[in-house]
Parts: sequence; structure tokens; C-alpha cells
Amino acid sequence: MRTIETCISPELVHLHELTGKTVVVVDIFRASSTMVTALANGVKCIKPISDLEECRAYKGEHWLIAGERNGQQAEGFDLGNSPLTFLSGAFAGKKLAMTTTNGTRAISLAKANASEILIGSFLNLQATVDYLLASDRDIVVLCAGWKGKFNIEDSLYAGALSLTLGWKHECDATLAMEAVFQHARDNLSLFLEKASHAKRLQNHHLEKDIDFCLELNRYNGVVHLENGVLKIKPASVNEKRLSPEGNSLRT
Amino acid sequence: MRTIETCISPELVHLHELTGKTVVVVDIFRASSTMVTALANGVKCIKPISDLEECRAYKGEHWLIAGERNGQQAEGFDLGNSPLTFLSGAFAGKKLAMTTTNGTRAISLAKANASEILIGSFLNLQATVDYLLASDRDIVVLCAGWKGKFNIEDSLYAGALSLTLGWKHECDATLAMEAVFQHARDNLSLFLEKASHAKRLQNHHLEKDIDFCLELNRYNGVVHLENGVLKIKPASVNEKRLSPEGNSLRT
Repeated sequence: MRTIETCISPELVHLHELTGKTVVVVDIFRASSTMVTALANGVKCIKPISDLEECRAYKGEHWLIAGERNGQQAEGFDLGNSPLTFLSGAFAGKKLAMTTTNGTRAISLAKANASEILIGSFLNLQATVDYLLASDRDIVVLCAGWKGKFNIEDSLYAGALSLTLGWKHECDATLAMEAVFQHARDNLSLFLEKASHAKRLQNHHLEKDIDFCLELNRYNGVVHLENGVLKIKPASVNEKRLSPEGNSLRT
Repeated sequence: MRTIETCISPELVHLHELTGKTVVVVDIFRASSTMVTALANGVKCIKPISDLEECRAYKGEHWLIAGERNGQQAEGFDLGNSPLTFLSGAFAGKKLAMTTTNGTRAISLAKANASEILIGSFLNLQATVDYLLASDRDIVVLCAGWKGKFNIEDSLYAGALSLTLGWKHECDATLAMEAVFQHARDNLSLFLEKASHAKRLQNHHLEKDIDFCLELNRYNGVVHLENGVLKIKPASVNEKRLSPEGNSLRT
């Protein structure tokens, strides 16, 4: 029997065995949503980098640099961390080096031991589920959180992913967040208005980013880390895929 | 405006400011439920001790020693960690030194900085809420968890406490667990059957302990740590107490 567990903060990652597993890194507001959107809109690849200055050094003719700290674009960077930036396709074909407050750190932590790293978002939830169903590894959802603390929107994604997979498991955090998703699913935006990071983004007038990041299944691609860069592929679909009735979140 | 926040694991306690605050330590299965039950049934005081051997050294004519590791009574100890042990009143007037896998460690961590430490359980939820309403400090609920990981029953208590207090707050973990409690409140036992630690206890045939620990408001006392020992006092009730209608969990 395959398992799924949720690591609700990067500070707890040492308590989870990642070796041999697929780790789905999630930072809903906004790093992982932005990564999925950029790649789905033609960006060639994304190099996630934890350190701001290391990322800045990529600036030049071959790379665009995207940097965010505490919800705002970092000084001197070409781009910030808004998924909406990429919708026009203006950055199609470009290579992006990217650093964010929490998301790129979580990817870096997962790299040490995971056999495979995916980037999760509500925008490509079903595609990720389809890919995971066709795979054979156990799964850890690694929530980026906010500066080490529990973050409701990232953990909520873990609950949504687990409910959509429909597997039995023995992970308390996953069990809790399935219940939260069941409670909130009919109006994620309304429920998450009270979330701490949504409030931070509202203070920066980023409500449109929040609504966009909560859209379910806009994109059909799966985002993988390969040789240090993120790329998108169509979800692989085979006989292990559940019927539409079995996938309660299919839209 | 007073605040409440939830620390979902002792491993994250360094991210929470405890200075000047009331910390409610909770280990539903079973340390904090057992402490409340023992004191409500006449035990004179309880000395919580993290280290097994340090606790063992208290054995003698003046102290009984209670010890649990991994859900089972520790070898050579007078008592284990079952609240049911104390219901007969056979230990009334006795002093108890107690060590458990997760709960006594959480108390020890809180002691470093908190202004006041309470012990939380569903058994005395309303009494604790009444006491907190009559106090003026901010609150941190410190969940004992399971060996550092998120533990659903402890965090669920945080959600129940916060819902009963009825305060506005900006804590994502509290917000999530309020939603879980709303989802599960009509049948806590059924919901928690799937929890990892409940399964551990079921394996030791401790189903009666589980049901007992989930009983709401059996006792009217509040459990405080004073000079290194736990004692019980009646809840202080004053004009700040909500009306029965305002306390949605009053039974």
C-alpha cells in the first residue's frame, strides 16, 4: 500500500523520511502557483534558488531573475512573485532564476533526499494527482509555510491532494487538512480571507493574485525538478487513473 | 485585543513568543487528560518530569511515581498514564511524580518563558475557558504532539478552546483546527478513530481511555503549574464570563 504524509513546515522536515519518495513542494501564496503558471505559459525552465544574492548573480542576457521577500518584489530584480505576470505569454521561451521567502527554501530542503520533486498548486492539482496515481512512490507533501510556521493554504493543498488521491493513510496532519478542505472547498477564497498570508497580500493589494492561486485545475501540466531546474510536462495518464467519479475534485 | 495562537509541535516552540503569556499545554492522549483527572479525584499535586530516571528517583514513601513511554507503563513505576486509574479516588491525598513520552517534555519547554502554565483537556475545557476569559494575558496553546510531529487530538483541543473563547485572531493553525473541530465535534470518537495515536492506544486495548479523554466538561477545575507542581483550582468566574449562549460547547 502506498502512503501519503504531510510535513506542515520545513522546520519539521527532519522528522519525515524523504528517501525513495516523491516530494510535492507547495507554496500556494505564491511561489509554487507562480512557477506552475510561468511554465504553463511558455517559460522554458525555472531555476529555484534559496539565496537572494546567488539568484541576483544570474541576471544577464540568458536569464531573467525573479525575486520576492516578505510578499514584495526584491530590489533590482526583473520580476516579483505574481503568477499574473506570466499570463500574457510575454516571457515564453525565457529562462527564469527565482528566489522567494519560503518556497525556494523548501525545494532546497527536499533536494537533499527525495527521489523526485514536484511543485504543487491548486492550478494543476488534478494533473499532479493523475501523475502520482501512475507512479509507484510514496508521497510527502512539503508545505513551505511562513518562516517556519504552519500555513493554512499550503496545508489545505495537502488535504485536497490526499482527498483527490483517495488513499488510506495514517498521517494526522493529512487527516486534519482533509477535514479543513471538506469544510472550505465550496468557497476557498472566502475561507482563506482570514489566513495570515492572504492578509499580508491584501495589504499589498494583491487580491487578484489570491483568487488566481485558488483556481482549481486551470493547467494540465505537472512540474518536475530535473537537474536543478523546473520543467513542465503533460500529466501521464494510464490505466491506474481513477474514473471521473472517483476523483471528487475533477472540474 | 487579546490573542490566541497554536503551536502545533514542541519542535516549533522557538517560533512562538511565550514571554508574558499563558501557555496551555495539551496532550489529550493521555498525559494532560490524566493530570486533570487525577487532580479532580483528589491527588494532592503532580510534579511533571521529562526524564524517566529523574522521575524514578522520586519513588518512596512521600511520592507515587507514574511513568509512560510509547503508550505503555514504564517498568518499575507505580502507575502508568491512564486517567481511569484515578476515578476510584484511591490516590486521594497522594503526591504524584509523573513522566510521559510527549506531555511532560512540552511542560518543560513552556516553563522557560511562559508567565503562567495551564494544563488543557477536553475534560475541563469550559472551566479553562472561563478562567482565561477572566484573565488578561495572551494565550499560546502548546500541543505535545507525537515525537515532534503534528498530532490531531492535541491540535483539535486548540480549535475547540479558540471556538469556545470566540476571539478574533490571526493564527493559521488555530483557524485550521477550528474548522476541523467544527467538522468533527458531533462525533469526536468516530473522527479520532483514524488518528495515529488513537490507533496506537487501540493496539494496547485502551479504547476506554480514548472515549474518556474525549468527554467534554466532566470537571470544573483549572490545572495550574505553581512552583514546579500541578494543582487544581475551581474556575474563577466573573463578569467577563460569556453567557451560556455565547459558549457554544457548554454542555
